[in-house]
Formats: sequence, structure tokens, C-alpha cells
Amino acid sequence: MKTLVTGGAGCIGSDLAAALLERGDSVVVLDNLSSGKIEHIAPMRDHPRFTFLETDLENFDSVASAMQGVEMVYHMAANPDVKFTEGDATDKDLRQNLVCTYNVLESMRRCGVSRIAFSSTSAVYGISPIQPIPESAFFPAPISLYGATKLGCESLISAFQNLFGWRAWIFRFANIVGPKVRKKGRTVIGDFITRLRENPKRLTILGDGKQAKSYLLSEECIGAMLYIVDHAQEPLNIYNLGCGDSLSVLRIADMVVEAMGLSGVEYDFTGGEGGWPGDVPRFRLDPSKLNALGWTAKRNSEEAVRIAIQTTLAAMPVAAHVDNACKP
Amino acid sequence: MKTLVTGGAGCIGSDLAAALLERGDSVVVLDNLSSGKIEHIAPMRDHPRFTFLETDLENFDSVASAMQGVEMVYHMAANPDVKFTEGDATDKDLRQNLVCTYNVLESMRRCGVSRIAFSSTSAVYGISPIQPIPESAFFPAPISLYGATKLGCESLISAFQNLFGWRAWIFRFANIVGPKVRKKGRTVIGDFITRLRENPKRLTILGDGKQAKSYLLSEECIGAMLYIVDHAQEPLNIYNLGCGDSLSVLRIADMVVEAMGLSGVEYDFTGGEGGWPGDVPRFRLDPSKLNALGWTAKRNSEEAVRIAIQTTLAAMPVAAHVDNACKP
Repeated sequence: MKTLVTGGAGCIGSDLAAALLERGDSVVVLDNLSSGKIEHIAPMRDHPRFTFLETDLENFDSVASAMQGVEMVYHMAANPDVKFTEGDATDKDLRQNLVCTYNVLESMRRCGVSRIAFSSTSAVYGISPIQPIPESAFFPAPISLYGATKLGCESLISAFQNLFGWRAWIFRFANIVGPKVRKKGRTVIGDFITRLRENPKRLTILGDGKQAKSYLLSEECIGAMLYIVDHAQEPLNIYNLGCGDSLSVLRIADMVVEAMGLSGVEYDFTGGEGGWPGDVPRFRLDPSKLNALGWTAKRNSEEAVRIAIQTTLAAMPVAAHVDNACKP
Repeated sequence: MKTLVTGGAGCIGSDLAAALLERGDSVVVLDNLSSGKIEHIAPMRDHPRFTFLETDLENFDSVASAMQGVEMVYHMAANPDVKFTEGDATDKDLRQNLVCTYNVLESMRRCGVSRIAFSSTSAVYGISPIQPIPESAFFPAPISLYGATKLGCESLISAFQNLFGWRAWIFRFANIVGPKVRKKGRTVIGDFITRLRENPKRLTILGDGKQAKSYLLSEECIGAMLYIVDHAQEPLNIYNLGCGDSLSVLRIADMVVEAMGLSGVEYDFTGGEGGWPGDVPRFRLDPSKLNALGWTAKRNSEEAVRIAIQTTLAAMPVAAHVDNACKP
């Protein structure tokens, strides 16, 4: 099977590409290396069934030319900056999520490719009155441009799937944590470690620290995606990827402090319910549908974060400004 | 109040613009006249509080320059061709719905405009297992590019509303019917009349004729929009606009035949559940939320269609290829 992975040099995409190679697929990775890293795909570069194309999905012709002969697409590329800060451009998610996803879908249609898996996000739910959140009962009111455009991508996939008789799998990710490193400030674990290395006496925590979210280990996320594609055979398959519990930011701070062997750290809170504009302060994903399909996460949110703290501490050079959590 | 109406030369947009003028607003209409018509706004052209700008929303600078001093936006412009036919471009809805809506929202942000009403559609629901469909419990899986991109627009509005502290009103329209004419083939009433005038013995009906949808009169739609904007004061207000019943295509055919004084017409069915790819064969909108706000449609679906048949017959020159139903 010839499989194309967009965003395949990213944290999750590169692990997925490696897993697909392991299964025997021929894997073509597309990545513009804007947030993906060449190091992530370095171990695969010499594999006879691996191809890397440095391609921007905003360029339709490049995507269409890479789509020749492909049988299955894993569309993992996206703008990874979930935060919107005053002064940021507001069209980044429109271009990198919606327009790029359209380019992928239209390339597939023109090349007769009819199977797509897509990394969506729990951010599509916005602030849900129902917790944990099932896939089937939600009032779609995303509060971030990231969540809004991911829901728009889901909708486009749903329409293409129906109009052209495709099969599609959509994964609504919890917060994915793992050993690969990311830029400072993007997610909580690496940010805390970096700040505590800079100043082991005080830690600034965004919001009121009571934000509580579902976490899932990156390796479990890859396993779940492949399991769902193998076992869910509806025309359109939408699954939450996570476990039904959540973990607070304050608890994560305590865990990082403990893992670093610190004590007596004073916390400063920036205040407010969410960490930044568009942050969903609290959510739990209902994994019942995925559990019923036969897959259950081995680690709950606290165990996933505990492992990610250890692997990040091991992987992060002291004083480097990096982070370890991946968000599609 | 200075109000901007995009798509204000369309069937619904022009009636809305007239109602806003009547209320005392200064009204700026933007329309590229791709489907809107200059005749629709002709009666308002000399009004001292009316301005028409022939503007394409795909041109960001034009939209931004029209946004100066505006206090409220009614964003009614969209690609009106709900049908997708093999050979059509697949990016029409992406450009005319998603990109244009982004341009409207970003222009608003830059000009400090913080109130927007938006014409969405029942097509966002796709094929819903729950009937009638409430706003608050749906599995978003649109089956048409039109429905998909309208849901994407809703999501963008939801994110802008939250990030910048706006107030927004989103209307999910039933099938809107009224006296203004439209191109042949776009909706059922005008299409049947045109075909029966061409051949009063036989009528081709798309699908199996059992498609059944909620209908609402255009004038009631305008009244409901203004009522909701006046009375719904949540930050984000999403309302179904329609009544809870539905009417079948076969019943509409019988009503048109009767209204034209014909008898013994033979029906040919093209077959299949939906009339075209992406057609939602059956839906009823749950109007409970709107009813609880204090507004109820005076006409049910059958009464609305009956009136629309009469006004269309009166408005349609014999043998002209036009249609009378408006879809946002």
C-alpha cells in the first residue's frame, strides 16, 4: 500500500510514518518543515520504501503531483500554534488548515484516491456543557481559530467523503504528549521544565491553574489511529482519541517540580479561567466509542503526563528552549 | 445605526435591506451581482439612507473599505448553488463561503465592528438521526460542499466572537420560499412550473419524490431574523429558522399541478433517495428554541409553499426559465 503522510516530519506524523513503514507500507512524507523537523525523519531517510518531499500544501500543483499512485492519505499537517495572541495574523489557520485540507482533498479526487485519515482535535468542541464529551452530541461552537478551522476541515472531509463515495477516519485528539521536543511555550510540560531550569524558585502558571484536560501518550495515539483505520469501516468514522479523565495544570506543575527534585517553588498565576484567548479551560473526552471498537488507552492522563515529563527531562538539553508535547 | 448587508441584492438580502431601511437604519449593501440582481435593490436606490456598492467579497480591501463606520453586519452573501454536479469546480464554496466570510470577519475586526448576523443553513446538519433537529444536539457531518463550508463559516464566526468579545447571531434556515425569482433548476417550485409550462402532460421529479423538507416563507424569515437580533442576547446565538414540519416533493408537485389547473400529469422519477449528490433527503427543523424566544412562524411548510406557488405563478412570465425559492 502506498501511503501519503502530510506533516510527516512533525512529532506525531513522523512516528506515524515510522509505524506505517513497519507495517510494510510505502510511505511518502510531505512536509514544508515550518514546524516539522528533518531530524524527525532522519532515521527513515535510507529506507527503500520511504520518500520525503519538502512540499507546502498551499501549493496545489505540488500536492497533486505527490498524490499519483497513492492509496491512502494520513493528513496530519496543520498550523501547530493553537494559541492566538493579539497581533498574530488571523488567516494562518484559514490557510494552513482549511485551504491546505481542501488542496489535499481535491488532489485526492483528481487522482482517484478515496481513503483519508485526518488529525482533528478536541478543540472542535469548544466549551461543552456535556462532560466527558461524546462524538455524537455536541453543539459546535469552537472558541479558537484553530478549533474552528479544524471543524471546517472535518466538514469538508465529510462532504467529499459523501459526494465521491470515499471512506474517511477523523480523530479528535486529546492533548498528545510524548518524547519529541517542540518550541518553548507551545505546551505545558516543556514550558514548565524550561522555566524551572531558568528559575527553580518561582513558576508562572497561565490562568488560574485549574484548567484540566485529557492527555494521551504519542505512542498510544499512533496505535489508536492505526487500530481505528483497520477496524472502523463506516463511510465516515469519527473518534475521540483519549481517555475519559483529565489532569489539572496545577497538578502537572507539582509533578514537574517533584520530577526535577525541587521543593518550595512558589507559583504565580496570571489569572483567568483559560491560559490564553481561545483556550478551553476544562474538558474530558468520552472514549466509549473507541473502547467499544476494541481499543482502550493503557495510560490515563496522569500516567501519560508522568511518562512525558520523564522522557522530556531526558531529551531536553539543560536550558534549551524546547517543549515535548505535540498537537496536531 | 449603520448596517452593512452582504449579498444585499439577493432574494433574501434585498428584502432584509428594505426591512432595515424601514426600521430607520442606514443600509450599505455589498453585492457582486453574480446571483443577486440590480432589480431587487432598484426600489431602494433613491433612498437617502441607502448605499449600494458592487463589491466582490473575495477582494479583502474592498470589504475593509466598506466596513468603515459600520455598527452591525448581516452577512447573507454566499454561493447559492447548493447542488454539486459532476464537472463543477469543487472550490466555489471554499472561496465564496469560507474565504469571503473570513474577509468579512477580519474586516470587522480591523474596523472595530463587533456585531454580526449570519445566514447559515439546515444543510449543516447533514443526515441527522434526530428529527426534528434541535440546534444543540447534532453530529456535524454535512454531505454537501455547501453545508460543509457553511458549518466552517459558523465555526469561524464562533471563534472570532469569542476571541474579540463580539456578539453573533447565526440562523440555520429551512428552505426559504417567496415571490422573488431565481434561475431555473435551483429550487423545486419554479422548476416544476417551468417544466409543466413546457410540457403539461409529464413532469420529471428528481429522486423518488419522497424527499421531505421544512419550508419557510421569505417574509417570515426576515421577520424572524430581526426578532432574534433584537431579543437573543447571548454572546453567540444560534437558531433554527423554520417550523417543525416538512413537506414532500411529491406533495409539492401535486400542489403545483393543481394550482396550474392541470390534471392527468404523469410523473417520471429519476430515482434514488436524494434529488442530487449532497441533497439531504429528509429533514425537519426543531423550532422550539425560537418559539421559546417568543417567535413562531404563522405558516407551516404546506401553507408557505402554497403561497409561494401562487406568487411565483403570478411573477413568472410564461416560458421564462426562472425559479422562485431563495437559499442563503
